[in-house]
Amino acid sequence: MSDVQLIEVGPRDGLQNEQTLLSVDEKVEFIGRAVDAGVRRVEAVSFVNPRRVPQMAGAEEVMERVPRLDGVSYIGLVLNRRGLDRALASAVDEVNAVVVATEEFSRRNQGCGVADTIAAAVDVVRDARAAGIATTVTIAVAFGCPFTGEVEPGWISDIVARLADEAAPDEIALADTIGVGVPAQVRDLARRTAERAPGIPQRWHFHNTRNTGYANALTALESGASALDASIGGFGGCPFAPAATGNIASEDLVYALDRSGVTTGIEMQRLVDAAQWLGKALDKDVPALLGRAGAFPAAR
Amino acid sequence: MSDVQLIEVGPRDGLQNEQTLLSVDEKVEFIGRAVDAGVRRVEAVSFVNPRRVPQMAGAEEVMERVPRLDGVSYIGLVLNRRGLDRALASAVDEVNAVVVATEEFSRRNQGCGVADTIAAAVDVVRDARAAGIATTVTIAVAFGCPFTGEVEPGWISDIVARLADEAAPDEIALADTIGVGVPAQVRDLARRTAERAPGIPQRWHFHNTRNTGYANALTALESGASALDASIGGFGGCPFAPAATGNIASEDLVYALDRSGVTTGIEMQRLVDAAQWLGKALDKDVPALLGRAGAFPAAR
Repeated sequence: MSDVQLIEVGPRDGLQNEQTLLSVDEKVEFIGRAVDAGVRRVEAVSFVNPRRVPQMAGAEEVMERVPRLDGVSYIGLVLNRRGLDRALASAVDEVNAVVVATEEFSRRNQGCGVADTIAAAVDVVRDARAAGIATTVTIAVAFGCPFTGEVEPGWISDIVARLADEAAPDEIALADTIGVGVPAQVRDLARRTAERAPGIPQRWHFHNTRNTGYANALTALESGASALDASIGGFGGCPFAPAATGNIASEDLVYALDRSGVTTGIEMQRLVDAAQWLGKALDKDVPALLGRAGAFPAAR
Repeated sequence: MSDVQLIEVGPRDGLQNEQTLLSVDEKVEFIGRAVDAGVRRVEAVSFVNPRRVPQMAGAEEVMERVPRLDGVSYIGLVLNRRGLDRALASAVDEVNAVVVATEEFSRRNQGCGVADTIAAAVDVVRDARAAGIATTVTIAVAFGCPFTGEVEPGWISDIVARLADEAAPDEIALADTIGVGVPAQVRDLARRTAERAPGIPQRWHFHNTRNTGYANALTALESGASALDASIGGFGGCPFAPAATGNIASEDLVYALDRSGVTTGIEMQRLVDAAQWLGKALDKDVPALLGRAGAFPAAR
């Protein structure tokens, strides 16, 4: 039992911006290590065009080989009907559709406007539900846009309301895609989201690009979050800030939650070991701090 | 005017554990850069034995040459009467005395027991007050000890009460010396401290060793902190965790505060520039993230 779900997004968002391509074998081992550590929801694959995102190639093969255990749920990122068809054929347990909150980011990242991403997400949720699998819609750049700057929280809550009314996904995720947010924004967006999408569980996605990611995650939890995204080792980064760190790290988040008396059901040391393994596979230093600093108290 | 005081502790705690020794010239430039950025309290020097802490040598020469401006207050760390005499001769504006919360850390770090550090701090405060300068007592390892693990919050508040009763310093600082704390602990200690030392302003000192430092700082502010320690560039580290990061970084803290609508009176970009300068002087990468990721919105 856990007080909050940690969703391991390393296999998807963690790898997506890394230069070194992992093999299918390596991706399967990475996912297996997360599951062995006790993670029960894994964003394992992305059903996007592998020519656009080479790191996400081989999604079907990965899904054929991941350990299928009771209580473990695999999420596939899906942008449209074509992606959903691949997801259904791969027997993912959940799909995560993406709405982009600003026109400029949407056109550059998805090649279409905000309204198109909303319409596509609504369709994905409807069709996924018809196929019997769980659905999330993630609102990207909800805290700020690298191209157009500030994003109005009222605009985000309008998107939330539209998604709740037209799609009623099983979960709404708010994403600080470029790592600019602060806890005051989290509190505000959590309150607005609860008002506009009452009863829909909130999932949050933070990057630690400017050292606010962990404060944001803990604030989201206090504000009623049911799930938090994190990435083993904190790999990832952002194509708009080449030297910046990536997702908040699963092991550092579990440390903070554990010391706060929040149960995750996850073994921190196994995450640390998985991060070291992944660092070797990517030939990169591990951005997470727990592996360097050590657990506290040391004997744990 | 500012909503919270940022105390630049880089010249003291930031440098203290760095291998590369800075010259007096470099230390004076470092302090001048912090003041130019708008910092109004600087922990500039430590009056400890320079044979024990070589990085802190030359405190008197540093204090002779720092810019003396209206509204800028220089703090000297002081462990005993000998240190206080040096501090008074150097015309510091404030002294910071240190109490260590656990016996083992106290004996290894100060060479005496907890009760001795309390008695010494009480004496330093009394004598400094008699000399007309402001006083802080910092309680080190208030969130956990690298040798003996957990530290009971009730024990910390007993120390707080004793300091309030016997010394009544102008400020009490609670220090997470080894970077193990979480926001729930901050809230608990802030409440206990306000109860046991009513009316004495609270200052907090966090390290980001396990990625909880910024969450702790923001929580301290919400819990009534009047001052937060931070170090330009986030240099420092911990002798007990050689690969760990140091103090929370001034620029990253100012970013979080600024985006939260909290005024500090400090120009973030000048801190970023100072951190780059310091990184060159120490021949080290800057641990802070803001210089890598860039401000947001970009045009600010």
